Amino acid sequence: MEKFKVKAYGTDAADAPLAQLDIHRREVLPKDVEIDILFCGVCHSDLHVARSDWGPSAYPVVPGHEIVGRVTKAGKDVTRFKVGDLAAVGCLVDSCRVCESCKQDLEQYCLNGFTGTYGGEDKHLGGHTFGGYSEKVVVDQDFVLSVPENLDLAAAAPLLCAGITTWSPLKHWNVGKNSTVAVVGLGGLGHMAIKLAKGLGAHVTLFSRTKSKEKDALELGADKVVISTDEDQMASVRGNFDLIIDTVPYVHDLNPYVSTLKVNGTLVVVGYLGPLEPMLNTVPMIMGRKSVAGSVIGGIAETQEMLDFCGKHNIVSDIEVIKIQDINAAYERMLKSDVRYRFVIDMASLKK
Amino acid sequence: MEKFKVKAYGTDAADAPLAQLDIHRREVLPKDVEIDILFCGVCHSDLHVARSDWGPSAYPVVPGHEIVGRVTKAGKDVTRFKVGDLAAVGCLVDSCRVCESCKQDLEQYCLNGFTGTYGGEDKHLGGHTFGGYSEKVVVDQDFVLSVPENLDLAAAAPLLCAGITTWSPLKHWNVGKNSTVAVVGLGGLGHMAIKLAKGLGAHVTLFSRTKSKEKDALELGADKVVISTDEDQMASVRGNFDLIIDTVPYVHDLNPYVSTLKVNGTLVVVGYLGPLEPMLNTVPMIMGRKSVAGSVIGGIAETQEMLDFCGKHNIVSDIEVIKIQDINAAYERMLKSDVRYRFVIDMASLKK
Repeated sequence: MEKFKVKAYGTDAADAPLAQLDIHRREVLPKDVEIDILFCGVCHSDLHVARSDWGPSAYPVVPGHEIVGRVTKAGKDVTRFKVGDLAAVGCLVDSCRVCESCKQDLEQYCLNGFTGTYGGEDKHLGGHTFGGYSEKVVVDQDFVLSVPENLDLAAAAPLLCAGITTWSPLKHWNVGKNSTVAVVGLGGLGHMAIKLAKGLGAHVTLFSRTKSKEKDALELGADKVVISTDEDQMASVRGNFDLIIDTVPYVHDLNPYVSTLKVNGTLVVVGYLGPLEPMLNTVPMIMGRKSVAGSVIGGIAETQEMLDFCGKHNIVSDIEVIKIQDINAAYERMLKSDVRYRFVIDMASLKK
Repeated sequence: MEKFKVKAYGTDAADAPLAQLDIHRREVLPKDVEIDILFCGVCHSDLHVARSDWGPSAYPVVPGHEIVGRVTKAGKDVTRFKVGDLAAVGCLVDSCRVCESCKQDLEQYCLNGFTGTYGGEDKHLGGHTFGGYSEKVVVDQDFVLSVPENLDLAAAAPLLCAGITTWSPLKHWNVGKNSTVAVVGLGGLGHMAIKLAKGLGAHVTLFSRTKSKEKDALELGADKVVISTDEDQMASVRGNFDLIIDTVPYVHDLNPYVSTLKVNGTLVVVGYLGPLEPMLNTVPMIMGRKSVAGSVIGGIAETQEMLDFCGKHNIVSDIEVIKIQDINAAYERMLKSDVRYRFVIDMASLKK
């Protein structure tokens, strides 16, 4: 298969910093779109995979799954994009397309495993896929999104992961004008959850451990901030929420939040992968038909729906733009939550 | 308020056996129905409350919330029952009737607390309510159910708790002809879950720890039995179920069952109240948008719907009829799961 070399940023080992390297992209196949990457958001997953935090990664790792750019080439059967169009790629670049999940536009739950934008199996060139910390990416049009022209492009990049990860549960659990939604944790995911829930017309509360994030949360659109370490404040919202989106990326106690759900309410975990400690108590769940659920990113059609919604409501992420050369420092700051609320790489820096 | 004395069976202390005693019932108020109790099912809760297993009970405890009988008196404003009608009472005899839950026919989730058939606050006579181990009961018609005349009355009694407890989640999570349902545990609740899910047209699997219950389960209507201690059998049903009803009344590991849910599937706990140990792992929940939920009994309208469904499909419980004088021995056998699948007291034995 014909391929070409592009510059990228990645790492050869879990304990090595990211540095410039070369990777290959395939020449466009009939249904492929080649995208010149303008901006790429920096997700916590990038860091975890680069460092083999979730088990051994295949190296080199080239992270990045919040990709926005312009189409530079389109295969002969491409119908949805033409050269010069804005285009975006999120966390998936392929899936089996035939399983029960794929047939329902739930590619993120592909029963045969979706192809991750990085670290997935490269069905064309062999080896594994490389992400958006690179000059260009080539993706089948079925997994390429259109970006509304009115959006700030750099700030739109995080919609492709942080945005869809919070949008999907908001839609799945039918959040709308009369919904009461709470968000646990104010980071990349949390700040998008506030903006999107607010955009959908919900009454939005942020749960935060400290008062320091109150001002930010209100500016982002939250109607209310509840300090989760304050028992009186927690008691004041008992039985209050239809949906809680829990974005906290480390293990923590869900029980105090379950108590703030309404009858039939759901707490959906989107940030933390692992065993729930302390243990979940079934009593409030049984006595109020409450659910604890999980959710991961979103399907392609749903991602497009989210982007179109963001275009209409002019919703983007709050970001700090960095150069690719500053990625290692950005990772360290991200580990300290020292970013409001997402780093986005200006990929022009890679071309220099 | 006018009242009258009736014979009952109950206990004055957590460590005392049940014995005959006298209690009072109110004379019918305009909306009340007086019921001569013919049969009363024996639920695990009866034993737990009698023994203060769930915290100190108010004594004397007169258990029983699976009540079937005939109307002997009806208040002047009673419209739904007349003397001689079959009637039933389940776990609730009242609720606030004005909260968000009650207005949605979800009296079991009454935000001000429903009135339990026993051990609840008696709003009329003061003190606490007394259950169905007694000659008669007086209940507001809004909390009295009609019993289809074609059903075996003794075997219908457990529908009022074991039946509705499994029916409510089957209906809430939309089980129907194309559903795949699994039931964990084959006891009073489990055997009703199989019959009702089957009645609704679902494909039904029983999870059991041993092969000993296989024959029974198939006779009850299960299509399949999976031995949960057999890893190959468990692997063969990965991603298989829309809904799992977990009826096991003690702490146990839910994680192996979560893995057998389909994408978007729900495991609903109806049997065990307490912390979930080992810990629930969020990974399969997130990677398949799976939920773990709880559910308790059902609302009055839903209970009537279930009884009517059972009448139409001739579904009742598998029971062993006992005399009230044998209740203490029955409790001991129940603790050893030595009953297929529900004890029901022939209340004629109390009148002798």
